Amino acid sequence: MILYDYWRSSSAWRVRIALHFKGLAFERRVVNLSKEVGEQHADAFAALNPSRQLPVLVIDDGAHTITQSMAIIAYLEERFPTPPLLPADPWLRARARQLAEMVNAGIQPLQNLSVLERAQAGGLDANEWARHYIARGLGELEIAAQATAGAFLVGDAPSIADVYLVPQLYNGRRRSVDLAPYPTLLRVEAACAALPAFAAAHPDAQSDAERPKT
Amino acid sequence: MILYDYWRSSSAWRVRIALHFKGLAFERRVVNLSKEVGEQHADAFAALNPSRQLPVLVIDDGAHTITQSMAIIAYLEERFPTPPLLPADPWLRARARQLAEMVNAGIQPLQNLSVLERAQAGGLDANEWARHYIARGLGELEIAAQATAGAFLVGDAPSIADVYLVPQLYNGRRRSVDLAPYPTLLRVEAACAALPAFAAAHPDAQSDAERPKT
Repeated sequence: MILYDYWRSSSAWRVRIALHFKGLAFERRVVNLSKEVGEQHADAFAALNPSRQLPVLVIDDGAHTITQSMAIIAYLEERFPTPPLLPADPWLRARARQLAEMVNAGIQPLQNLSVLERAQAGGLDANEWARHYIARGLGELEIAAQATAGAFLVGDAPSIADVYLVPQLYNGRRRSVDLAPYPTLLRVEAACAALPAFAAAHPDAQSDAERPKT
Repeated sequence: MILYDYWRSSSAWRVRIALHFKGLAFERRVVNLSKEVGEQHADAFAALNPSRQLPVLVIDDGAHTITQSMAIIAYLEERFPTPPLLPADPWLRARARQLAEMVNAGIQPLQNLSVLERAQAGGLDANEWARHYIARGLGELEIAAQATAGAFLVGDAPSIADVYLVPQLYNGRRRSVDLAPYPTLLRVEAACAALPAFAAAHPDAQSDAERPKT
């Protein structure tokens, strides 16, 4: 499998976590999304994904592509079910997916770079816009997680909910959102950080990570 | 099962389609989301879903709730697999989910009412904002669908991709988006409209639908 990826793409980061968690080998191809480089706009990448977004997973010896992190992770879960990213109980499965979607559809789309650029171009304060939606969404997630949280968001094993949580908290810090009101989320984030799969998928662990200038 | 629903909620509409498609009995409880009434802000509803959003599905004799249309439909698909809303082939399953997510995470969150109100409060043209994201997303969907489209978005049977397409096209019309550039999407929409499940789930077929004033 080939993952088109960028160290700081939070949607691609989710897929990296799932791949590492399941112990799957994959080739990483970097698409530099930085404003200065913008490799997603190159024709070669647009041919692969006309939406010009990451992640893209290439499967079946190059015959097929999948985009959208949720679709990719559902594919991985069905093809490589062990270790699972979904609990066995039907309601807990549903809640794990619900918490993941609260990030995937409820927060991330409203604070991604292209939306912030459009808001800013229209005269809005992009940081204030991003902070509003991140804080609102994390607040909802903190409450919703109370129904199921153990060591992780759903019980005592990592699930797809945690896969979506961790990159979203990172984005919150980048936007200077005060995370103190979300103690459950922070506790779960710390539990995730102790797992090798989450460590291997972290942006700073990627070959294309920008190092702080010294 | 109990579905908290509103005739014009496009996210709840998706769940109505899935329930009707699978021939499942459900009790419908209306939460009037109109600006004038705003029943989602009532304490009783907030206790059910602190995010104050539709849809909410109540399962297990009232013991459990699920929110987020994707999580609800995945639950229904796993518990009541026949007739299926996902193809059998792994890649086609992935593409059906991908197309659905292109609406769920790629379009709808950027044009829902609360986002438009915030954009407008900041001085942006809410209609222009909505039209931009709907047209962009439908354009991407039209291209992505070429890989799999038959009578429906993925082959010749309805799938979750079609469940997400139909309400999004309705929203596009409400915002006066020119849909002519999306002939595949319009052809599939017509095929869906001919199916009893899609007809039964249409906003105008709901008990709380507002009739045009005569």
